[in-house]
Amino acid sequence: MYNIGIDLGGTNIAAAIIDETSSIVRKGSVPTLRERDYTLIVKDMATLALKLVKEHGLEITDIHSVGIGSPGIVDTENGLIVYANNLHFKNTPIRDEFNKYFKVPVYIENDANAAAYGEFIAGVGEKYSDFVAVTLGTGVGSGVIINNKIITGSYHGGAELGHMVIQVGGSTCSCGRKGCWEEYSSATALIREGKKAAIAHEKSKLNELIDGDIDKMNAKIVFDAAQAGDKVASDIIEWYIDYLAIGLVNLINIFQPQAIALGGGVSAQKENLIKPLKEKMINEIYGGIENLKTELLVCKLGNDAGIIGAAMLYKLYDK
Amino acid sequence: MYNIGIDLGGTNIAAAIIDETSSIVRKGSVPTLRERDYTLIVKDMATLALKLVKEHGLEITDIHSVGIGSPGIVDTENGLIVYANNLHFKNTPIRDEFNKYFKVPVYIENDANAAAYGEFIAGVGEKYSDFVAVTLGTGVGSGVIINNKIITGSYHGGAELGHMVIQVGGSTCSCGRKGCWEEYSSATALIREGKKAAIAHEKSKLNELIDGDIDKMNAKIVFDAAQAGDKVASDIIEWYIDYLAIGLVNLINIFQPQAIALGGGVSAQKENLIKPLKEKMINEIYGGIENLKTELLVCKLGNDAGIIGAAMLYKLYDK
Repeated sequence: MYNIGIDLGGTNIAAAIIDETSSIVRKGSVPTLRERDYTLIVKDMATLALKLVKEHGLEITDIHSVGIGSPGIVDTENGLIVYANNLHFKNTPIRDEFNKYFKVPVYIENDANAAAYGEFIAGVGEKYSDFVAVTLGTGVGSGVIINNKIITGSYHGGAELGHMVIQVGGSTCSCGRKGCWEEYSSATALIREGKKAAIAHEKSKLNELIDGDIDKMNAKIVFDAAQAGDKVASDIIEWYIDYLAIGLVNLINIFQPQAIALGGGVSAQKENLIKPLKEKMINEIYGGIENLKTELLVCKLGNDAGIIGAAMLYKLYDK
Repeated sequence: MYNIGIDLGGTNIAAAIIDETSSIVRKGSVPTLRERDYTLIVKDMATLALKLVKEHGLEITDIHSVGIGSPGIVDTENGLIVYANNLHFKNTPIRDEFNKYFKVPVYIENDANAAAYGEFIAGVGEKYSDFVAVTLGTGVGSGVIINNKIITGSYHGGAELGHMVIQVGGSTCSCGRKGCWEEYSSATALIREGKKAAIAHEKSKLNELIDGDIDKMNAKIVFDAAQAGDKVASDIIEWYIDYLAIGLVNLINIFQPQAIALGGGVSAQKENLIKPLKEKMINEIYGGIENLKTELLVCKLGNDAGIIGAAMLYKLYDK
């Protein structure tokens, strides 16, 4: 039995056939060309899926289900993309449209939720029933799984953990609020602080590593400069880890899952990130280390998490 | 069919028989005398329950189950009170001990969760499946129900929403963190600010209402002074509502329940609180009023919520 996962992005549509071991056996992508009518975009999604089936020597009857991860607000019950800014979709009946080309059960989910579900089913979350994934990227993305189910919110707008205010009156977020966690713990925030520091401290290691070109700043450079002993950079890392720890302990006080896994570019730092982060978190947990029962992990599926998670959505619906 | 709910407090043990309409038909209480061994406390709980049964002309066979709400960390599966500071309990096998006297199914739950469940089953939450109760009292207590189940955390320490930091580096909380929501949105916080203002502004309405006795300050007085046009008091109310709104919108971004209900002393202000609170919340919701889908309500069961919720716990376990 195979399932197909599709990751509908603003730039590309990526799809893959997933086997019974939750592994990708064939993968492909086509451009989204997102200015087009949704019917054309869905047609390309279905055409890509059918092409993969054929290339892999399968028939449609070998496919148990198709799962689609989409940005924005997704109405899972009715198979609609309620709203996706990137795609100019509004109450778009993506499931029914897809079914015109490919007659199998189709499940849709928000892309961050699908990625969290992928890590939950086939990645570092596979041994847990309560699991939170937090992606430290352009923003702070998140997905929450409690009792083996995705928490989506009653109106498909929940689990937006990056938009939890942790600093009242703080930095203005793209969502309009001030002091969202995302403003402090995204890769974007780390890069922003790295740039500010490079400009303020001409002779810092930070400036050396970017060859004086501020646009070369990234999260790795800030970590590398700190590792090399640069005080300016290590102050930024300490600041970054402080806020990240505070947000994560909020999540423990709220959900107390068995594990939280970090993904996104910043998580590539692995122990450079996890070790100091845990030390900070222990200070924030009521009762200290004895009560830090939630495991802190690094995601392992990378960009494939979204496709794999989409393909595995059927597990939420099959009896 | 009847169920019995017991609210184990640091001062009193309150118990009641609840009928099939989730109403209290008979109620009683005895002192906890919390310094005693747990076996004596549990014996008094059982004796009180048996006395109510007899007084109401019932037999033990008329009782379907007993539910117990306890402070602290409660292991629902094993029927233990893992830890309750107030009661000097540690891994106390309260369910088995209770069963020595009263042989019916016994369910235990944290008291804040039980109170939220009471409002959910028999109070303002009864028409929802996803519901959050927030009690604005000495602290900020909370209970979260998603898909008709209580979210307890994997290790019985979740749903502590009052200990979500909303102001990094802010006011020091009893839990050891800085800037917990509880430090801004509890009745205690409102009274603290009221006292500070009364001391700083001798001629304020606040001082008039407390007859110059700072210990008379309470939440109602701050609201009353603001209603009477006192600028000092209305500034405090505005500050209070700001932080409360921010925390509540965090909960919407995290859980997006169908409804959030406020309880505790401050919630007695009803529309004086709810109206300005909603206005602030609309400013914090991404997309504004159109996206504020979560209802904001005031709890209606008061102190009975905990007993009723405890009595209704069987609904989580009966097949």
